[in-house]
Amino acid sequence: MNFQSFSETYKRALEQEMQSQISKLHAPNSLKEAMLYSLEAGGKRIRPMLVFAVLEAFGQNPDRGISVAAAIEMIHTYSLIHDDLPSMDDDDLRRGKPTNHKVFGEATAILAGDALLTYSFQAIAEIDMEGVTPMMQLELIKLLSRSAGAEGMVGGQMADIEAEGKHLALESLEYIHSNKTGKLLSASILAGAILAEASERQKTLLLEFSRHLGLAFQIRDDILDIEGSQEKIGKPVGSDTANSKSTYPALLSMDGAKEKLSIHIEQALLSLAKSGINTELLEEVTEMIAARDH
Amino acid sequence: MNFQSFSETYKRALEQEMQSQISKLHAPNSLKEAMLYSLEAGGKRIRPMLVFAVLEAFGQNPDRGISVAAAIEMIHTYSLIHDDLPSMDDDDLRRGKPTNHKVFGEATAILAGDALLTYSFQAIAEIDMEGVTPMMQLELIKLLSRSAGAEGMVGGQMADIEAEGKHLALESLEYIHSNKTGKLLSASILAGAILAEASERQKTLLLEFSRHLGLAFQIRDDILDIEGSQEKIGKPVGSDTANSKSTYPALLSMDGAKEKLSIHIEQALLSLAKSGINTELLEEVTEMIAARDH
Repeated sequence: MNFQSFSETYKRALEQEMQSQISKLHAPNSLKEAMLYSLEAGGKRIRPMLVFAVLEAFGQNPDRGISVAAAIEMIHTYSLIHDDLPSMDDDDLRRGKPTNHKVFGEATAILAGDALLTYSFQAIAEIDMEGVTPMMQLELIKLLSRSAGAEGMVGGQMADIEAEGKHLALESLEYIHSNKTGKLLSASILAGAILAEASERQKTLLLEFSRHLGLAFQIRDDILDIEGSQEKIGKPVGSDTANSKSTYPALLSMDGAKEKLSIHIEQALLSLAKSGINTELLEEVTEMIAARDH
Repeated sequence: MNFQSFSETYKRALEQEMQSQISKLHAPNSLKEAMLYSLEAGGKRIRPMLVFAVLEAFGQNPDRGISVAAAIEMIHTYSLIHDDLPSMDDDDLRRGKPTNHKVFGEATAILAGDALLTYSFQAIAEIDMEGVTPMMQLELIKLLSRSAGAEGMVGGQMADIEAEGKHLALESLEYIHSNKTGKLLSASILAGAILAEASERQKTLLLEFSRHLGLAFQIRDDILDIEGSQEKIGKPVGSDTANSKSTYPALLSMDGAKEKLSIHIEQALLSLAKSGINTELLEEVTEMIAARDH
């Protein structure tokens, strides 16, 4: 199975799962509508696909990861809603559609984000599936809360805001990215490993893999902001430059950034190769990230 | 032991616990400072005290509830930070101090709230204490996420915002209160019951107790907004009237509201009496809520 068809199958399953979970909540319709609007805005669904692909790599049924994949995508989506707010990045467009607060207003957007974040933990605590033990559920909640909170994504966003307009050293730039986007990507891969009962050595290798993948992803993002097409990315290109954000091409030159990108891709593939699992799909994801145009 | 001295002891323990948990996080200082600012703003700490008091009522050491009590207070605090934002209730003062966004700015206030919410689930998943089983931890996470999310506190806040300026029926008013404030109060009491391994019948009675207590608390709040003193409450009186919010005195007259308050207090005490636990402290909390002046 190649990643294209794998991804189509599980993207559909994921989107149905999220839709059905949120729709059945006993909550004000306006709130559910705002939650669903951003969940349904599409996107690559990279994090959920990594959960599924890791399960597949261990020879397990990817369906086992559906609740966890949905929870991670909800955390990612809440972070986009809050990051887009006027007091944060003040973005009007996301994936080519008006941002949540543009459609529903700021108060509802904040609450929709809060509700998605809260629900993600509920969804994991409520998993009722053979082979998913309470210990695994607690491991998953620890992993996701650490990756998403002050010591992860939220901390990275805070550092990113504070860095605006400043000239950053490479080290600070990597701190921001490894927290703001890297840790939740890693968590997606490790979540698959927890569900698959990977060995400690396999978890360590997959963590290494995920870190290189995360940095590669971010470098590619920075490159796309300069070389990409607005139509494909769904937001204006050149916005990093306009917001005087520090980026890899700005710090390392475009050639330097591209070289760094290939080193991380290479290292990612190397870690995978040592893991002793069927890494076909994961390799394909890695190559896709290196070459993606949106 | 009376509630006064019980509360002083455990308030100190709670505040130390929250301070030490947040201080040790590896996160940007500005974020931790904003989180601590609102956690240290004081307040009655009613929710944590209910966790401790329920454990005491079951003859258990209240210390066992410290992490859960801290997690609940963090959820409560995050909700206050977000509710005070300009796009929500737009409040400048909270407990007599400038609100979080007034001191740290909106972006940091939003992130501090997000980080507190996320950390509360982490704290429960990380409990490592004899007698607290993984099943209990999952029960607690389910309880808190359901009470705090779209089907609880966030849903109640959404309904409250939508109700602004509208004339509400009593039923809608009770929906708002039972979700916006009631469910997290109930969760505090049930969290104590989970830790104490209460029987199903005891949990049902304590849930009944908590619902009456929550409504009594809210009715007293509405009464204080009219009859209270600004100095004691720490925010301007009459703000509900100024914001044309529906309140119990507005719907039922002041006498009607006071009568409803005593009925709920009576029902709360009745449920307690049936539970077969040592309810001395819980009765005292109930009487305090009936008579509180801030």
